[in-house]
Amino acid sequence: MSNFGVTDLRLVNPYDVAFKEARSAVRARYILEQAQVFDSVAPAVGDCALVVGTTAQGNRDLHVPLHRLETAGALIKRQLSSSPVALLFGSEKFGLSNEDMSHCHWLLRIPTREEHGSMNLGQAVAVCLYELVRNEGAVEKRFEAPQPVTGEDLERITILVLDLLDRSGYVNERTSKSTELKVRRLVRRLGIRDPDAETWLGMLRQILWKVKQSDHDP
Amino acid sequence: MSNFGVTDLRLVNPYDVAFKEARSAVRARYILEQAQVFDSVAPAVGDCALVVGTTAQGNRDLHVPLHRLETAGALIKRQLSSSPVALLFGSEKFGLSNEDMSHCHWLLRIPTREEHGSMNLGQAVAVCLYELVRNEGAVEKRFEAPQPVTGEDLERITILVLDLLDRSGYVNERTSKSTELKVRRLVRRLGIRDPDAETWLGMLRQILWKVKQSDHDP
Repeated sequence: MSNFGVTDLRLVNPYDVAFKEARSAVRARYILEQAQVFDSVAPAVGDCALVVGTTAQGNRDLHVPLHRLETAGALIKRQLSSSPVALLFGSEKFGLSNEDMSHCHWLLRIPTREEHGSMNLGQAVAVCLYELVRNEGAVEKRFEAPQPVTGEDLERITILVLDLLDRSGYVNERTSKSTELKVRRLVRRLGIRDPDAETWLGMLRQILWKVKQSDHDP
Repeated sequence: MSNFGVTDLRLVNPYDVAFKEARSAVRARYILEQAQVFDSVAPAVGDCALVVGTTAQGNRDLHVPLHRLETAGALIKRQLSSSPVALLFGSEKFGLSNEDMSHCHWLLRIPTREEHGSMNLGQAVAVCLYELVRNEGAVEKRFEAPQPVTGEDLERITILVLDLLDRSGYVNERTSKSTELKVRRLVRRLGIRDPDAETWLGMLRQILWKVKQSDHDP
């Protein structure tokens, strides 16, 4: 809940031991300390214009409409703009009872494999809240897309590679022109971007220096 | 993983105690039994054409492109159609190391509140896998939308309610026509649907019977 900025936790008959243990949660203690405890569902959802239950049991006769989370998310967000909405989760073992579900306007189902059955409660909550905060249009501005490298730099790299290959005995005189073209294309296909080009140029120059040195050895 | 139908778990230097405990996971034991263990990242992702790291640290200098999960999901799904993709998670406490990240083509970030910092590992995995299986176009066929009730039934309900109100002394003779119109509109706004109309008719008839009885009492 804290990860996704949701703070209003309400518990109906919580299992005290687990609740007290959970209160030590790192950086989310404030949510547990503010949590309200109720002894039935009705007062817990009393101020909510929409109550949505969660279920893993897609095939049980549920008496209420059932939406996949993708659809449910849009419906919940629309309602949230004008009033509080309750997301009701059952216990991990038994889920929501029929009595619990009778308080729900409709139910949502996370699109999991039916064969697996139930889902870890914390994971189910995280997935539902993620659907509510997810925003396809949000732009991540933290990484500036690197600039493509200039043709000049690409050609510098090409020449260095060719020089290296030539000095290493890779280039056959007869096919040297076709090797040159091949290497030029290979270098362009690498997709090198600034500022990586400078790094590559530096490394290639260093290798070339070493290769030249061994040429001068007796 | 089992909830979302993902089975290929690979572990790099797992903490043995936790790993052995986890092996008892209900209905997901097969995933843990098949899990491969590696002593470094490189062989673990050796057959993957795309390696995506996960991070909560949106503001750290990451040296690699960072995508929000919404965007990352689409990129991963595209690649998955032709080759395996690795999703790399770090330890809950420390996340991925710089060494781990150097194996990644890019990183993804779940859009959580930055102030909270890290996220529970199981929840992070669940949210990422949900993004990969989520399908906005999927149709939930389990609940047949109930038919709107006919005008005939609505009018039957209206008449019963009016009769009840009349016998209960709610209707003022002077305003009885406007009360009738008001009740007719109220009943239409209820949004009653089949087969609920029959249930309401039955309940109203029963109440009417009771009200008529008390009329006959001395």
